[in-house]
Amino acid sequence: MATARPSGRPRDPDVDRKLAEAAVALFGEQGWASFTIEAVCRRAEVGKASAYLRWNSKEELLTEALTTRLGSISDVDTGSVRGDLVQLVWQMTELYGGENGRAALRLLMEAENIPGLAERYTELAQAQIMAARAIVLRGKHRGELPEGTSVTYLLDALCGGAMNHALTTRLAPPELRDSAPPAADYAERFVDFVLTSVFSREGAA
Amino acid sequence: MATARPSGRPRDPDVDRKLAEAAVALFGEQGWASFTIEAVCRRAEVGKASAYLRWNSKEELLTEALTTRLGSISDVDTGSVRGDLVQLVWQMTELYGGENGRAALRLLMEAENIPGLAERYTELAQAQIMAARAIVLRGKHRGELPEGTSVTYLLDALCGGAMNHALTTRLAPPELRDSAPPAADYAERFVDFVLTSVFSREGAA
Repeated sequence: MATARPSGRPRDPDVDRKLAEAAVALFGEQGWASFTIEAVCRRAEVGKASAYLRWNSKEELLTEALTTRLGSISDVDTGSVRGDLVQLVWQMTELYGGENGRAALRLLMEAENIPGLAERYTELAQAQIMAARAIVLRGKHRGELPEGTSVTYLLDALCGGAMNHALTTRLAPPELRDSAPPAADYAERFVDFVLTSVFSREGAA
Repeated sequence: MATARPSGRPRDPDVDRKLAEAAVALFGEQGWASFTIEAVCRRAEVGKASAYLRWNSKEELLTEALTTRLGSISDVDTGSVRGDLVQLVWQMTELYGGENGRAALRLLMEAENIPGLAERYTELAQAQIMAARAIVLRGKHRGELPEGTSVTYLLDALCGGAMNHALTTRLAPPELRDSAPPAADYAERFVDFVLTSVFSREGAA
Protein backbone atom coordinates (compact mmCIF):
# COMPACT_ATOMS: atom_id res chain seq x y z
CA MET A 1 0.00 0.00 0.00
CA ALA A 2 1.70 3.28 -1.12
CA THR A 3 1.48 6.12 1.38
CA ALA A 4 1.32 9.67 0.06
CA ARG A 5 3.40 12.05 2.17
CA PRO A 6 5.63 15.06 1.64
CA SER A 7 8.99 14.03 0.19
CA GLY A 8 12.43 15.40 0.99
CA ARG A 9 12.56 14.53 4.69
CA PRO A 10 14.10 11.16 5.57
CA ARG A 11 12.07 9.13 8.08
CA ASP A 12 13.72 8.60 11.47
CA PRO A 13 13.71 4.82 12.06
CA ASP A 14 13.61 5.31 15.81
CA VAL A 15 10.40 7.35 15.57
CA ASP A 16 8.97 4.81 13.12
CA ARG A 17 9.67 2.01 15.60
CA LYS A 18 8.19 3.90 18.58
CA LEU A 19 5.03 4.70 16.65
CA ALA A 20 4.63 1.14 15.36
CA GLU A 21 5.14 -0.33 18.85
CA ALA A 22 2.66 2.10 20.39
CA ALA A 23 0.10 1.49 17.64
CA VAL A 24 0.21 -2.30 18.03
CA ALA A 25 0.09 -2.12 21.85
CA LEU A 26 -2.83 0.33 21.85
CA PHE A 27 -4.78 -1.69 19.30
CA GLY A 28 -4.14 -4.86 21.32
CA GLU A 29 -5.37 -3.33 24.56
CA GLN A 30 -8.33 -1.28 23.38
CA GLY A 31 -9.14 -2.28 19.82
CA TRP A 32 -10.23 -0.23 16.85
CA ALA A 33 -13.04 1.58 18.72
CA SER A 34 -10.50 3.61 20.74
CA PHE A 35 -7.73 3.83 18.12
CA THR A 36 -6.67 7.38 17.16
CA ILE A 37 -3.44 8.87 15.79
CA GLU A 38 -3.37 11.22 18.81
CA ALA A 39 -3.54 8.33 21.29
CA VAL A 40 -0.73 6.52 19.45
CA CYS A 41 1.48 9.63 19.56
CA ARG A 42 0.81 10.16 23.29
CA ARG A 43 1.77 6.59 24.03
CA ALA A 44 4.87 6.75 21.83
CA GLU A 45 5.83 10.17 23.26
CA VAL A 46 6.22 11.44 19.71
CA GLY A 47 4.86 14.75 18.40
CA LYS A 48 1.66 14.50 16.36
CA ALA A 49 3.30 16.27 13.41
CA SER A 50 5.65 13.28 12.93
CA ALA A 51 2.71 10.93 12.58
CA TYR A 52 0.74 13.19 10.25
CA LEU A 53 3.83 13.54 8.03
CA ARG A 54 3.90 9.76 7.67
CA TRP A 55 0.27 8.72 7.32
CA ASN A 56 -2.91 10.17 5.92
CA SER A 57 -5.19 8.16 8.16
CA LYS A 58 -5.25 5.96 11.25
CA GLU A 59 -6.08 2.99 8.99
CA GLU A 60 -2.75 3.44 7.17
CA LEU A 61 -0.84 3.87 10.44
CA LEU A 62 -2.31 0.68 11.92
CA THR A 63 -1.86 -1.35 8.74
CA GLU A 64 1.82 -0.45 8.47
CA ALA A 65 2.44 -1.01 12.19
CA LEU A 66 0.82 -4.45 12.16
CA THR A 67 2.64 -5.46 8.97
CA THR A 68 5.99 -4.43 10.52
CA ARG A 69 5.49 -5.83 14.02
CA LEU A 70 3.58 -9.08 13.47
CA GLY A 71 5.73 -11.61 11.67
CA SER A 72 4.68 -13.73 8.73
CA ILE A 73 5.04 -17.49 8.43
CA SER A 74 5.55 -17.42 4.69
CA ASP A 75 9.32 -17.96 4.71
CA VAL A 76 9.55 -21.24 6.65
CA ASP A 77 11.65 -23.80 4.72
CA THR A 78 14.09 -25.77 6.88
CA GLY A 79 14.45 -28.69 4.48
CA SER A 80 12.36 -31.22 6.41
CA VAL A 81 8.63 -31.32 7.07
CA ARG A 82 9.12 -31.91 10.79
CA GLY A 83 11.49 -28.94 11.01
CA ASP A 84 9.07 -26.71 9.07
CA LEU A 85 6.11 -27.72 11.26
CA VAL A 86 8.08 -27.12 14.47
CA GLN A 87 8.89 -23.62 13.16
CA LEU A 88 5.24 -23.07 12.26
CA VAL A 89 4.01 -24.11 15.72
CA TRP A 90 6.71 -22.04 17.40
CA GLN A 91 5.76 -18.96 15.35
CA MET A 92 2.05 -19.39 16.10
CA THR A 93 2.82 -19.71 19.82
CA GLU A 94 4.93 -16.54 19.67
CA LEU A 95 2.31 -14.70 17.60
CA TYR A 96 -0.56 -15.34 20.03
CA GLY A 97 1.41 -15.75 23.28
CA GLY A 98 4.07 -13.07 22.79
CA GLU A 99 3.92 -9.36 23.51
CA ASN A 100 1.80 -8.67 20.42
CA GLY A 101 -0.57 -11.58 21.06
CA ARG A 102 -3.57 -9.46 21.94
CA ALA A 103 -3.14 -7.41 18.77
CA ALA A 104 -2.95 -10.59 16.68
CA LEU A 105 -6.13 -11.90 18.25
CA ARG A 106 -7.93 -8.57 17.81
CA LEU A 107 -6.90 -8.54 14.19
CA LEU A 108 -8.51 -11.94 13.69
CA MET A 109 -11.71 -10.50 15.16
CA GLU A 110 -11.82 -6.86 14.07
CA ALA A 111 -9.89 -6.65 10.80
CA GLU A 112 -13.03 -7.10 8.71
CA ASN A 113 -14.54 -3.94 10.20
CA ILE A 114 -11.54 -1.67 9.66
CA PRO A 115 -11.74 0.23 6.37
CA GLY A 116 -8.63 -0.26 4.24
CA LEU A 117 -7.26 -2.99 6.52
CA ALA A 118 -9.89 -5.64 5.74
CA GLU A 119 -8.70 -6.35 2.20
CA ARG A 120 -5.00 -6.32 3.11
CA TYR A 121 -5.67 -8.64 6.06
CA THR A 122 -7.61 -11.14 3.96
CA GLU A 123 -4.72 -11.20 1.46
CA LEU A 124 -2.18 -11.77 4.24
CA ALA A 125 -4.29 -14.42 5.97
CA GLN A 126 -4.77 -16.27 2.68
CA ALA A 127 -1.03 -16.06 1.92
CA GLN A 128 -0.29 -17.54 5.35
CA ILE A 129 -2.84 -20.33 4.96
CA MET A 130 -1.30 -21.19 1.58
CA ALA A 131 2.25 -21.04 3.06
CA ALA A 132 1.26 -23.44 5.83
CA ARG A 133 -0.41 -25.76 3.32
CA ALA A 134 2.73 -25.60 1.15
CA ILE A 135 4.79 -27.00 4.06
CA VAL A 136 2.57 -30.09 4.18
CA LEU A 137 2.41 -30.43 0.39
CA ARG A 138 6.25 -30.24 0.14
CA GLY A 139 6.42 -32.95 2.82
CA LYS A 140 4.16 -35.18 0.73
CA HIS A 141 6.10 -34.41 -2.44
CA ARG A 142 9.40 -35.36 -0.76
CA GLY A 143 7.81 -38.58 0.48
CA GLU A 144 8.09 -37.53 4.14
CA LEU A 145 4.32 -37.69 4.66
CA PRO A 146 1.85 -40.29 3.37
CA GLU A 147 0.01 -39.22 0.21
CA GLY A 148 -3.38 -39.47 1.99
CA THR A 149 -2.51 -37.02 4.79
CA SER A 150 -5.34 -34.51 5.35
CA VAL A 151 -3.72 -31.10 4.99
CA THR A 152 -6.69 -29.40 6.69
CA TYR A 153 -6.87 -31.67 9.76
CA LEU A 154 -3.10 -31.67 10.24
CA LEU A 155 -2.92 -27.86 10.13
CA ASP A 156 -6.06 -27.42 12.28
CA ALA A 157 -4.47 -29.62 14.95
CA LEU A 158 -1.07 -27.91 14.80
CA CYS A 159 -1.98 -24.24 14.30
CA GLY A 160 -5.04 -24.50 16.53
CA GLY A 161 -3.12 -26.39 19.20
CA ALA A 162 -0.41 -23.72 19.25
CA MET A 163 -3.03 -20.97 19.50
CA ASN A 164 -4.90 -22.81 22.24
CA HIS A 165 -1.67 -23.35 24.15
CA ALA A 166 -0.72 -19.67 23.89
CA LEU A 167 -4.18 -18.37 24.80
CA THR A 168 -5.29 -20.69 27.57
CA THR A 169 -2.09 -21.44 29.50
CA ARG A 170 -2.61 -18.31 31.63
CA LEU A 171 -6.22 -19.37 32.36
CA ALA A 172 -5.35 -22.87 33.58
CA PRO A 173 -5.55 -23.65 37.30
CA PRO A 174 -2.16 -22.95 38.96
CA GLU A 175 -1.33 -26.63 39.56
CA LEU A 176 -1.56 -27.31 35.81
CA ARG A 177 0.22 -24.12 34.82
CA ASP A 178 3.30 -25.05 36.86
CA SER A 179 3.65 -28.40 35.12
CA ALA A 180 3.29 -26.98 31.57
CA PRO A 181 6.40 -27.73 29.49
CA PRO A 182 8.56 -24.70 28.67
CA ALA A 183 7.64 -23.04 25.38
CA ALA A 184 10.90 -23.97 23.59
CA ASP A 185 10.14 -27.63 24.15
CA TYR A 186 6.44 -27.36 23.41
CA ALA A 187 6.66 -26.96 19.62
CA GLU A 188 8.83 -30.06 19.11
CA ARG A 189 6.89 -32.28 21.48
CA PHE A 190 3.50 -31.20 20.20
CA VAL A 191 4.47 -31.68 16.53
CA ASP A 192 5.72 -35.19 17.31
CA PHE A 193 2.46 -35.95 19.14
CA VAL A 194 0.35 -34.93 16.13
CA LEU A 195 2.65 -36.44 13.47
CA THR A 196 2.25 -39.86 15.11
CA SER A 197 -1.35 -39.70 13.89
CA VAL A 198 -0.26 -39.22 10.30
CA PHE A 199 2.30 -42.01 10.28
CA SER A 200 0.11 -44.55 12.05
CA ARG A 201 -2.64 -43.77 9.54
CA GLU A 202 -0.28 -44.97 6.80
CA GLY A 203 0.40 -48.17 8.73
CA ALA A 204 -3.33 -48.78 9.08
CA ALA A 205 -4.04 -48.25 5.36
CA MET B 1 -23.67 -13.78 41.55
CA ALA B 2 -26.72 -12.39 43.40
CA THR B 3 -28.21 -9.27 41.85
CA ALA B 4 -29.89 -6.77 44.16
CA ARG B 5 -33.06 -5.36 42.64
CA PRO B 6 -36.49 -4.28 43.80
CA SER B 7 -38.65 -7.30 44.57
CA GLY B 8 -42.37 -7.81 43.93
CA ARG B 9 -42.32 -7.53 40.14
CA PRO B 10 -41.86 -10.78 38.19
CA ARG B 11 -39.28 -10.60 35.39
CA ASP B 12 -40.64 -10.96 31.86
CA PRO B 13 -38.64 -13.80 30.24
CA ASP B 14 -39.11 -12.30 26.79
CA VAL B 15 -37.53 -9.00 27.89
CA ASP B 16 -34.75 -10.96 29.65
CA ARG B 17 -34.02 -12.84 26.43
CA LYS B 18 -34.06 -9.72 24.25
CA LEU B 19 -31.69 -7.92 26.59
CA ALA B 20 -29.32 -10.90 26.85
CA GLU B 21 -29.24 -11.35 23.05
CA ALA B 22 -28.59 -7.66 22.48
CA ALA B 23 -25.89 -7.55 25.17
CA VAL B 24 -23.98 -10.50 23.71
CA ALA B 25 -24.28 -9.20 20.14
CA LEU B 26 -23.17 -5.69 21.08
CA PHE B 27 -20.23 -6.96 23.13
CA GLY B 28 -19.21 -9.25 20.25
CA GLU B 29 -19.27 -6.44 17.70
CA GLN B 30 -17.80 -3.56 19.67
CA GLY B 31 -16.30 -4.93 22.86
CA TRP B 32 -16.25 -3.56 26.37
CA ALA B 33 -15.03 -0.09 25.34
CA SER B 34 -18.41 0.73 23.76
CA PHE B 35 -20.64 -1.33 26.07
CA THR B 36 -23.36 0.65 27.91
CA ILE B 37 -26.77 -0.29 29.35
CA GLU B 38 -28.33 2.38 27.14
CA ALA B 39 -26.85 0.89 23.96
CA VAL B 40 -28.06 -2.60 24.93
CA CYS B 41 -31.60 -1.27 25.51
CA ARG B 42 -31.62 0.58 22.18
CA ARG B 43 -30.55 -2.57 20.37
CA ALA B 44 -33.07 -4.74 22.25
CA GLU B 45 -35.83 -2.14 21.74
CA VAL B 46 -36.56 -2.34 25.45
CA GLY B 47 -37.09 0.64 27.75
CA LYS B 48 -34.12 1.60 29.94
CA ALA B 49 -36.22 1.26 33.12
CA SER B 50 -36.54 -2.50 32.51
CA ALA B 51 -32.77 -2.91 32.45
CA TYR B 52 -32.17 -0.70 35.50
CA LEU B 53 -34.77 -2.72 37.44
CA ARG B 54 -32.74 -5.85 36.70
CA TRP B 55 -29.11 -4.85 37.06
CA ASN B 56 -27.12 -2.38 39.09
CA SER B 57 -24.30 -2.11 36.58
CA LYS B 58 -23.31 -2.94 33.03
CA GLU B 59 -20.82 -5.49 34.42
CA GLU B 60 -23.71 -7.44 35.98
CA LEU B 61 -25.81 -7.20 32.82
CA LEU B 62 -22.99 -8.51 30.62
CA THR B 63 -21.99 -11.27 33.05
CA GLU B 64 -25.54 -12.61 33.24
CA ALA B 65 -26.07 -12.35 29.47
CA LEU B 66 -22.85 -14.21 28.68
CA THR B 67 -23.56 -16.90 31.27
CA THR B 68 -27.04 -17.45 29.79
CA ARG B 69 -26.16 -17.29 26.11
CA LEU B 70 -22.77 -19.02 25.87
CA GLY B 71 -23.02 -22.69 26.70
CA SER B 72 -20.74 -24.64 28.98
CA ILE B 73 -18.98 -27.89 28.16
CA SER B 74 -19.10 -29.20 31.71
CA ASP B 75 -21.98 -31.66 31.20
CA VAL B 76 -20.53 -33.84 28.41
CA ASP B 77 -20.73 -37.54 29.36
CA THR B 78 -21.89 -39.80 26.51
CA GLY B 79 -20.39 -42.99 27.94
CA SER B 80 -17.43 -43.30 25.55
CA VAL B 81 -14.31 -41.16 25.23
CA ARG B 82 -14.73 -40.83 21.47
CA GLY B 83 -18.35 -39.71 21.91
CA ASP B 84 -17.37 -37.18 24.58
CA LEU B 85 -14.53 -35.76 22.46
CA VAL B 86 -16.78 -35.45 19.40
CA GLN B 87 -19.24 -33.48 21.59
CA LEU B 88 -16.41 -31.33 22.91
CA VAL B 89 -15.11 -30.50 19.42
CA TRP B 90 -18.65 -29.84 18.17
CA GLN B 91 -19.35 -27.48 21.10
CA MET B 92 -16.06 -25.61 20.57
CA THR B 93 -16.86 -25.22 16.86
CA GLU B 94 -20.33 -23.89 17.72
CA LEU B 95 -18.96 -21.61 20.43
CA TYR B 96 -16.42 -19.86 18.18
CA GLY B 97 -18.13 -20.33 14.81
CA GLY B 98 -21.76 -19.78 15.82
CA GLU B 99 -23.71 -16.55 16.17
CA ASN B 100 -22.05 -15.73 19.51
CA GLY B 101 -18.55 -16.59 18.28
CA ARG B 102 -17.26 -13.03 18.30
CA ALA B 103 -18.46 -12.54 21.87
CA ALA B 104 -16.72 -15.76 22.94
CA LEU B 105 -13.48 -14.62 21.34
CA ARG B 106 -13.76 -11.14 22.88
CA LEU B 107 -14.33 -12.71 26.25
CA LEU B 108 -11.08 -14.65 25.90
CA MET B 109 -9.31 -11.38 25.20
CA GLU B 110 -11.10 -8.75 27.28
CA ALA B 111 -12.57 -10.56 30.31
CA GLU B 112 -9.53 -9.81 32.44
CA ASN B 113 -10.09 -6.07 32.05
CA ILE B 114 -13.80 -6.04 32.94
CA PRO B 115 -14.38 -5.38 36.64
CA GLY B 116 -16.54 -8.06 38.25
CA LEU B 117 -16.41 -10.29 35.18
CA ALA B 118 -12.70 -11.20 35.41
CA GLU B 119 -13.01 -13.41 38.46
CA ARG B 120 -16.19 -15.13 37.30
CA TYR B 121 -14.64 -15.76 33.87
CA THR B 122 -11.48 -17.29 35.33
CA GLU B 123 -13.65 -19.61 37.47
CA LEU B 124 -15.70 -20.64 34.43
CA ALA B 125 -12.63 -21.10 32.22
CA GLN B 126 -10.94 -23.25 34.86
CA ALA B 127 -14.12 -25.33 35.33
CA GLN B 128 -14.23 -25.92 31.57
CA ILE B 129 -10.54 -26.85 31.37
CA MET B 130 -11.07 -29.33 34.22
CA ALA B 131 -14.24 -30.72 32.55
CA ALA B 132 -12.34 -31.29 29.30
CA ARG B 133 -9.48 -32.95 31.19
CA ALA B 134 -12.00 -35.14 33.02
CA ILE B 135 -13.20 -36.53 29.66
CA VAL B 136 -9.67 -37.74 28.86
CA LEU B 137 -9.03 -39.00 32.40
CA ARG B 138 -12.32 -40.99 32.36
CA GLY B 139 -11.23 -42.48 29.01
CA LYS B 140 -7.93 -43.60 30.56
CA HIS B 141 -9.72 -44.95 33.63
CA ARG B 142 -12.09 -47.02 31.47
CA GLY B 143 -9.12 -48.35 29.51
CA GLU B 144 -10.24 -46.62 26.29
CA LEU B 145 -7.05 -44.55 26.08
CA PRO B 146 -3.46 -45.64 26.79
CA GLU B 147 -2.24 -44.68 30.26
CA GLY B 148 0.58 -42.55 28.79
CA THR B 149 -1.72 -40.27 26.73
CA SER B 150 -0.75 -36.60 27.17
CA VAL B 151 -3.93 -34.88 28.34
CA THR B 152 -2.53 -31.46 27.47
CA TYR B 153 -1.41 -32.27 23.92
CA LEU B 154 -4.60 -34.17 23.13
CA LEU B 155 -6.82 -31.30 24.29
CA ASP B 156 -4.61 -28.63 22.65
CA ALA B 157 -4.96 -30.46 19.33
CA LEU B 158 -8.73 -31.01 19.66
CA CYS B 159 -9.91 -27.75 21.27
CA GLY B 160 -7.41 -25.65 19.33
CA GLY B 161 -8.23 -27.43 16.09
CA ALA B 162 -11.94 -26.78 16.57
CA MET B 163 -11.25 -23.12 17.33
CA ASN B 164 -8.93 -22.78 14.34
CA HIS B 165 -11.50 -24.42 12.08
CA ALA B 166 -14.26 -22.09 13.30
CA LEU B 167 -12.16 -18.92 13.10
CA THR B 168 -10.22 -19.37 9.90
CA THR B 169 -12.67 -21.15 7.58
CA ARG B 170 -14.12 -17.80 6.49
CA LEU B 171 -10.60 -16.48 5.78
CA ALA B 172 -9.54 -19.36 3.54
CA PRO B 173 -9.27 -18.80 -0.23
CA PRO B 174 -12.63 -19.64 -1.88
CA GLU B 175 -11.37 -22.81 -3.60
CA LEU B 176 -10.48 -24.29 -0.18
CA ARG B 177 -13.64 -23.02 1.53
CA ASP B 178 -15.85 -24.85 -0.95
CA SER B 179 -14.17 -28.17 -0.27
CA ALA B 180 -14.35 -27.87 3.53
CA PRO B 181 -16.36 -30.73 5.03
CA PRO B 182 -19.75 -29.78 6.51
CA ALA B 183 -19.56 -28.90 10.20
CA ALA B 184 -21.65 -31.89 11.38
CA ASP B 185 -19.07 -34.21 9.86
CA TYR B 186 -16.07 -32.19 10.96
CA ALA B 187 -16.11 -33.08 14.66
CA GLU B 188 -16.20 -36.85 14.08
CA ARG B 189 -13.58 -36.87 11.35
CA PHE B 190 -11.23 -34.55 13.19
CA VAL B 191 -11.47 -36.51 16.46
CA ASP B 192 -10.66 -39.73 14.60
CA PHE B 193 -7.69 -38.04 12.92
CA VAL B 194 -6.22 -36.94 16.27
CA LEU B 195 -7.08 -40.14 18.18
CA THR B 196 -5.04 -42.14 15.67
CA SER B 197 -2.01 -40.41 17.19
CA VAL B 198 -2.87 -41.67 20.66
CA PHE B 199 -3.51 -45.26 19.65
CA SER B 200 -0.44 -45.55 17.42
CA ARG B 201 1.64 -44.18 20.29
CA GLU B 202 0.54 -47.16 22.34
CA GLY B 203 1.53 -49.54 19.54
CA ALA B 204 4.98 -47.93 19.36
CA ALA B 205 5.58 -48.18 23.11
